Amino acid sequence: MAEFPEVLNIAMVGHGFIAAVHSNAIHQVRRFFPTRFGLRTQVVCGRDRASLQAMADRWGWQETAVDWQTVIEREDIHVVDIATPNILHAPIAIAAAKAGKIVWCEKPLATTLTEAADMAEATKNVPTLVWFNYRRIPAVVLAKQMIEQERLGEIFHYRALYLNQSGVDPAKATGWRYRLSEAGSGASGDLLSHCLEMALYLNGEIEEVCASSKTFIKNRDVDDAVMLMARFSNGSIGTFEATRFGVGFRNSLSFQIHGSKGMLQFDLEDMNSLRFYDATETPGVQGTKKLMVPGPDDPYARNFWKPGHPIGFEHTFIATLGDFLSALQTDTTFHHIPFRDLPPS
Amino acid sequence: MAEFPEVLNIAMVGHGFIAAVHSNAIHQVRRFFPTRFGLRTQVVCGRDRASLQAMADRWGWQETAVDWQTVIEREDIHVVDIATPNILHAPIAIAAAKAGKIVWCEKPLATTLTEAADMAEATKNVPTLVWFNYRRIPAVVLAKQMIEQERLGEIFHYRALYLNQSGVDPAKATGWRYRLSEAGSGASGDLLSHCLEMALYLNGEIEEVCASSKTFIKNRDVDDAVMLMARFSNGSIGTFEATRFGVGFRNSLSFQIHGSKGMLQFDLEDMNSLRFYDATETPGVQGTKKLMVPGPDDPYARNFWKPGHPIGFEHTFIATLGDFLSALQTDTTFHHIPFRDLPPS
Amino acid sequence: MAEFPEVLNIAMVGHGFIAAVHSNAIHQVRRFFPTRFGLRTQVVCGRDRASLQAMADRWGWQETAVDWQTVIEREDIHVVDIATPNILHAPIAIAAAKAGKIVWCEKPLATTLTEAADMAEATKNVPTLVWFNYRRIPAVVLAKQMIEQERLGEIFHYRALYLNQSGVDPAKATGWRYRLSEAGSGASGDLLSHCLEMALYLNGEIEEVCASSKTFIKNRDVDDAVMLMARFSNGSIGTFEATRFGVGFRNSLSFQIHGSKGMLQFDLEDMNSLRFYDATETPGVQGTKKLMVPGPDDPYARNFWKPGHPIGFEHTFIATLGDFLSALQTDTTFHHIPFRDLPPS
Amino acid sequence: MAEFPEVLNIAMVGHGFIAAVHSNAIHQVRRFFPTRFGLRTQVVCGRDRASLQAMADRWGWQETAVDWQTVIEREDIHVVDIATPNILHAPIAIAAAKAGKIVWCEKPLATTLTEAADMAEATKNVPTLVWFNYRRIPAVVLAKQMIEQERLGEIFHYRALYLNQSGVDPAKATGWRYRLSEAGSGASGDLLSHCLEMALYLNGEIEEVCASSKTFIKNRDVDDAVMLMARFSNGSIGTFEATRFGVGFRNSLSFQIHGSKGMLQFDLEDMNSLRFYDATETPGVQGTKKLMVPGPDDPYARNFWKPGHPIGFEHTFIATLGDFLSALQTDTTFHHIPFRDLPPS
Repeated sequence: MAEFPEVLNIAMVGHGFIAAVHSNAIHQVRRFFPTRFGLRTQVVCGRDRASLQAMADRWGWQETAVDWQTVIEREDIHVVDIATPNILHAPIAIAAAKAGKIVWCEKPLATTLTEAADMAEATKNVPTLVWFNYRRIPAVVLAKQMIEQERLGEIFHYRALYLNQSGVDPAKATGWRYRLSEAGSGASGDLLSHCLEMALYLNGEIEEVCASSKTFIKNRDVDDAVMLMARFSNGSIGTFEATRFGVGFRNSLSFQIHGSKGMLQFDLEDMNSLRFYDATETPGVQGTKKLMVPGPDDPYARNFWKPGHPIGFEHTFIATLGDFLSALQTDTTFHHIPFRDLPPS
Repeated sequence: MAEFPEVLNIAMVGHGFIAAVHSNAIHQVRRFFPTRFGLRTQVVCGRDRASLQAMADRWGWQETAVDWQTVIEREDIHVVDIATPNILHAPIAIAAAKAGKIVWCEKPLATTLTEAADMAEATKNVPTLVWFNYRRIPAVVLAKQMIEQERLGEIFHYRALYLNQSGVDPAKATGWRYRLSEAGSGASGDLLSHCLEMALYLNGEIEEVCASSKTFIKNRDVDDAVMLMARFSNGSIGTFEATRFGVGFRNSLSFQIHGSKGMLQFDLEDMNSLRFYDATETPGVQGTKKLMVPGPDDPYARNFWKPGHPIGFEHTFIATLGDFLSALQTDTTFHHIPFRDLPPS
Repeated sequence: MAEFPEVLNIAMVGHGFIAAVHSNAIHQVRRFFPTRFGLRTQVVCGRDRASLQAMADRWGWQETAVDWQTVIEREDIHVVDIATPNILHAPIAIAAAKAGKIVWCEKPLATTLTEAADMAEATKNVPTLVWFNYRRIPAVVLAKQMIEQERLGEIFHYRALYLNQSGVDPAKATGWRYRLSEAGSGASGDLLSHCLEMALYLNGEIEEVCASSKTFIKNRDVDDAVMLMARFSNGSIGTFEATRFGVGFRNSLSFQIHGSKGMLQFDLEDMNSLRFYDATETPGVQGTKKLMVPGPDDPYARNFWKPGHPIGFEHTFIATLGDFLSALQTDTTFHHIPFRDLPPS
Repeated sequence: MAEFPEVLNIAMVGHGFIAAVHSNAIHQVRRFFPTRFGLRTQVVCGRDRASLQAMADRWGWQETAVDWQTVIEREDIHVVDIATPNILHAPIAIAAAKAGKIVWCEKPLATTLTEAADMAEATKNVPTLVWFNYRRIPAVVLAKQMIEQERLGEIFHYRALYLNQSGVDPAKATGWRYRLSEAGSGASGDLLSHCLEMALYLNGEIEEVCASSKTFIKNRDVDDAVMLMARFSNGSIGTFEATRFGVGFRNSLSFQIHGSKGMLQFDLEDMNSLRFYDATETPGVQGTKKLMVPGPDDPYARNFWKPGHPIGFEHTFIATLGDFLSALQTDTTFHHIPFRDLPPS
């Protein structure tokens, strides 16, 4: 694998909401994560020139370009960051990998398993990153640590929900996320992917699943909701549900894990805390505890502000990028959430 | 159907925890629910003479008896209340019905569908009651009213959980509830039955189910946990989970319902409240609201104490009995949760 | 002090809401608290014959009477229970004590300090009880135990609130509670008295106070709200607030105690739980914990239902009476919350 | 008042935690708040050269300097940002104002009322800002809007708490914040100042106060805790408490406001939400509602991420600076939280 220069020039494809979030992470990462790499927001690609220029101005991109194919061939570009509709993930990633670039890709990685396998194959010689940002929430990483420290003992149940209400109003539920041809799926790829990725991270391999999806709106060709039952390799069982019809919630990604020694519970709507029930305590003082995270010794506690000072949505992207750069610096053969973290084919 | 006397003499079979709860309801019901019927705690039946007498003394039963078969034939007995292990529900209920008695039966009604059908058939000429007490929680009845008033609009999702941790420690998880031969099932009959009964009450018929159970303890012959996905006749989809391995919870029976106009959420651990999200409000003030129930005009508000004065577990049994007696008084052909509320065979 | 008979005949003065609550406790106490005493609801006194009779019927009083003076002289009466407007507490209690009766009195004990002193003096040879029921909430008694076990260490802060919204609407805020001549005070006697009684119980003597009251409604002659700062003998400081203008709450009596080793928090609106922060734990797992109370070894766990089965408002009165009878049985010279628990004159 | 250049060169005095937070806000403000001003992090001043350089590197300051007196005289400097111990606020601010600079000052403004008055006088011709960042929390601004829209009606009660546990361990509670000579006060200036500033913002003028402070640690010369009762001009009454001995909390700044039409409640530990009780709703559906803020039309909703995507501590500083620059751009004679927002002398 090639050496990387001191300053990584980035080309981003896409200029919508998530592109802004990535841009922010690129600018902010060095404040919180010491790294030898500099990052330059070199060129942002998109089709709508007017909004593209506005985005470039606000988020400090040096250049704009309409044709991503040309940009990713440029010698001065070291990283291609994909922030487009899902259907473009594979072609851009594969082209970028062929050009020898580091490839970052927004989730879900692909629209089909075949695409994903092709992307993993194509990128096997370049560092890759899928922006599964929620894995980097300090409370989620703390949960992972506690499980590894056997604070939960034998795991019995894993339960995950992703609730938002984005699909209910057909007048608002428009755009590529609601078209099969561009998104590949609905709630499954958009929401359930986060739940499953987090489950694999926290609770390991899934052996069996049984799932069912539902589309509430006539003529919509993507799923509005999906429910899933699973059996994990560790002997635990799991239930999952992801829906764009979860009226009452804007962005609630939650999990609950029961083990022989305790219980953990998390909700993105309260992202600076983790609930913990320690079943090894004296019965009289057992109870579900709200841990404020990050606390003094918690993951990312030294990166962001002091304990008691909440972080927000954007910090999960900053931490994702910080971890990537740290891996790139110390061991160029290992990277978090690479494309090749695929289910066995 | 026969006329009922002014004072109903009751024979109870069983003298454990739930028998005490029934006894309390029998003594208390007239304080909170005006009825023309008097209730006399006449005879309690059980096999262990010593503990039976202690129970009779504490809970005010006039007589004790070892042989329930004889007791239910007594002419002076008008009601037979079954508070035994599940396996005895059918024989006692059928015998009591043959003797022309009113029959009350603890849940789950039966250990098999065949038993349940036989019980429904045998009791078709006597008033019956299954003690599905949680349906009478004021907050649950309020939820029902709000759904009927179309406060939720079209229903999209029904989600139910019953979590306790009773099965984890094999040294404590003993007794008939953990033996297939006496209980008929484990978490399914004990816990899931409450979830399903409440779902049928609140969200109507279920058309399709897909379920999976799990036993964590080797050699245990009942299920420790069960998960279930459902499709309801009203077009909504549902997930259910009931477990005795829900470490962190002692008795958490909860549901959450999302509809086009709002969301409702309930948890038995916080039984004097109901969460409501009104999606028809101005967006700026939409939010999940905690309704203290019973409030001034809520179900049972006039029966129990004043709003703001919490009721507890036992009041759900009192309300169940109160509703039964009211139905008996006003219309002897209709009774809440009768045996014949069976799934179609 | 005289011996007490096996069956205590009770005369109650008053027949409103709180009289019903007392009646319920009298009927129920023996179910949950073993005692050698029988209790007979002999006679209830009141001025409105129609509603008095209805109350007697519903709550099982043998007789009704209009003239309490005559009733408390009756030889067959052993206990006088005072459930009247505050202004009558002193004359009834003093007369009952003179007649040698056991005296139970609803809180606040008196309308002035002088009255209270006279009542304490008059009753010094008879067993007495003030119905400060909230001291008997299992979670509150657990808090007391934890403080005594030094789970909180040195106490720094005691903070109490009593919020309801009963005084806001002048059309509804009527009756004796809103008249100085009958109530003696407003929020102070009605609400703050609970906060202070609980503080004395949990945190000991108060050395200094500074208080301020407020009446929001013109021409109302009782206080609508009161705020108070205190210094306790144990070195801690306290703030108190009680109001009938706490819009948003029906009956929220709460406290929060910070000590060197931890924090405790309670709210009557969630009466089956106690919040505990254990500052002696490893920092990484410190957090506010919700203890479900009563848990297996908690106060009153053996009296009421099983852990995980909530109790309600009425159980606090049952526990008060249970503790009184237990004290009466085992040691007739000591009783909980007697009249003579007075501030030093 | 002078015209301001397109790019404002900033000199910061101080390089600790809060200096980093200010630096971040300076870098980030233009991403979220459109402004014609550029901001350049020109020079950071401090006494410890090693840590000063590290801070400058991490937070992108062009130069470092030891002598602030010289720096604030430099012609190329347009803004002086004070992030020092309290005792230096006055001399730096007064010197900066004399040099014609815009002055930003960390809270509390001063250590005495005299100092504050001198600072207000000295800066009357330059734009000023006190970094009372918590006023800019979206949920707090939403509370302000709701009060102005009369959603609460007549205000009865204002209640504020600031709880942390920073003072309990004398081994850790060191540094200038614990020395009267450098801090001017303890919990009062550090914590209570936030509560009072927010109360003035939300509930208007205070007419009378009665306060009491407490120092728990022997020989410490600043207050550890302070409690305060107040009467506001609008007829409401208030209680305040601020403590560094609030064991169980790291950074809980909360308020609760009761009015004739509703209640509002906020806690910094849950900063992306506001609780609202609407007492004008039908009684049956009244309840405390959790509003996720910012929601679609809420304050700063267009500045930060989409509704449902939490913001954190740092965004309150970004918003403070964004509002300042907006005021500077549109009306150089008005600025939010200027030094001259003083209590009447």
